[in-house]
Amino acid sequence: MRYVSFEKDGKAWLGVREHGAIRTLGETTLEALLAEGIDLKTWAAKQDGGRIEAEEGLKFLPPLRRPPKILCVGLNFADHTKESNFEQPKYPTLFLRVNTSLVAHDAPMVRPAVTDSEGLDYEGEIAVVIGKGGRHIATENALAHVAGYSLFNDGSVREYQFKTPQWTVGKNFDGTGAFGPDLVTADELPPGAKGLLLETRLNGEVVQSANTNEMVFDIASLISIISEAITLEAGDVIVTGTPSGIGWARNPKLLMKAGDVCEVTVEKLGTLRNTIVDEAGA
Amino acid sequence: MRYVSFEKDGKAWLGVREHGAIRTLGETTLEALLAEGIDLKTWAAKQDGGRIEAEEGLKFLPPLRRPPKILCVGLNFADHTKESNFEQPKYPTLFLRVNTSLVAHDAPMVRPAVTDSEGLDYEGEIAVVIGKGGRHIATENALAHVAGYSLFNDGSVREYQFKTPQWTVGKNFDGTGAFGPDLVTADELPPGAKGLLLETRLNGEVVQSANTNEMVFDIASLISIISEAITLEAGDVIVTGTPSGIGWARNPKLLMKAGDVCEVTVEKLGTLRNTIVDEAGA
Repeated sequence: MRYVSFEKDGKAWLGVREHGAIRTLGETTLEALLAEGIDLKTWAAKQDGGRIEAEEGLKFLPPLRRPPKILCVGLNFADHTKESNFEQPKYPTLFLRVNTSLVAHDAPMVRPAVTDSEGLDYEGEIAVVIGKGGRHIATENALAHVAGYSLFNDGSVREYQFKTPQWTVGKNFDGTGAFGPDLVTADELPPGAKGLLLETRLNGEVVQSANTNEMVFDIASLISIISEAITLEAGDVIVTGTPSGIGWARNPKLLMKAGDVCEVTVEKLGTLRNTIVDEAGA
Repeated sequence: MRYVSFEKDGKAWLGVREHGAIRTLGETTLEALLAEGIDLKTWAAKQDGGRIEAEEGLKFLPPLRRPPKILCVGLNFADHTKESNFEQPKYPTLFLRVNTSLVAHDAPMVRPAVTDSEGLDYEGEIAVVIGKGGRHIATENALAHVAGYSLFNDGSVREYQFKTPQWTVGKNFDGTGAFGPDLVTADELPPGAKGLLLETRLNGEVVQSANTNEMVFDIASLISIISEAITLEAGDVIVTGTPSGIGWARNPKLLMKAGDVCEVTVEKLGTLRNTIVDEAGA
């Protein structure tokens, strides 16, 4: 199933794609349903909402706007580690995003009004949403903890990412983390979202292209390793890392400016599309 | 005023210290009140709860268990930057904590059951709780955005902190971030919590001692600089950095083991006390 979070009359609604349209499920959020431990499929079958025939004009929301945590994985494709001039760590390189950095599919990604940044860089990735939390989850059971998958553009302000030893600020400017459009349940994809083509396009031109099999730490391993340290909770998001091709590593650099359109496509998952805007008041 | 979050019959309650006792204010949380924009002082004056005469047996909760975000500042005392073998960055070194890492005053801090770690390290710090959110907050207005201050022990699993270029995992093991006991409102402290003695003791011995005036980036500057990038929300916590004296930088290393008692004291703020336990099943 493909769940769609959207805004209607200023409120958050949930729907599900069916027969080329969206069946509305009610005024609620995925984070609320997952936190309550509700089985989405059973629940959705019982809802009797209206239908939205065309998604034109639909105001998407991120699949979850307030996940308990957003764990991002850096350096998870060997060729991206190399282009970034890092040695490949033997353990997942984790950083965190805050909810204030999220934007939806079709919403603008924001190039911040800071004078010492050339632009915003793209990073196409797969996002995993945890359905059932836990600690010390074994790799062989890890995929049973997944509610579904989505797409993420881990927009990065590189100059800020490298101002200090920690990347946090460059990864957390408001409006830089695009997330969506759908939460696609695990049964619609190969186990662990393996063997899928991941592609990022900037103004129609392919800038990143890789197979999800190339991840250094696959999704089951990430869930298991993270949960050795940190309790995963229902609704947590793991953003699994980007392949090579980032704009910052190119010569000359290719950074996103106002008016650019960036798309992240993964087979069977769909396309996350965002236009870049300059921060208001810039 | 000094607000106390505690557990009663399995639920989260709020109280305020008055005349040597705690007046209960009701079954609510500081994060809920702050998110609603409620003026704590006005609200507290209207509550007519009972009194808890002695705090013995009281089960403290962290002042906020689910703040929207926890922004931590590394390398914010020059002598700590030096002992950590980093160059002093000209911008605050930010990393994030997740809520699952928090523990209350009087609760055990957990040394994780990972075989490749010698122990847990202490980092005594001041935590700032945002009362009024905002973006692009000017330094001269920043302190008006503070609801109050508390204490934090930024317990660190050093081997994990340095497994990859990002410190995230070593700073986010379950049960390693001690926070409390009270939220002390800004009017009880000098502006920006300046000029206060910060001391960490391990089993009674002073292991860190500094004046809060020594922060590289003071609290008003931190709020202003962070908000250039990130919208601050009511209830956000900024953990402002630790002075020199950490156990990892000593020769021989001084790491916390089961049974150790660690205390963080800041003048006018109080004392945060935690006993170290080994993770169950270790």
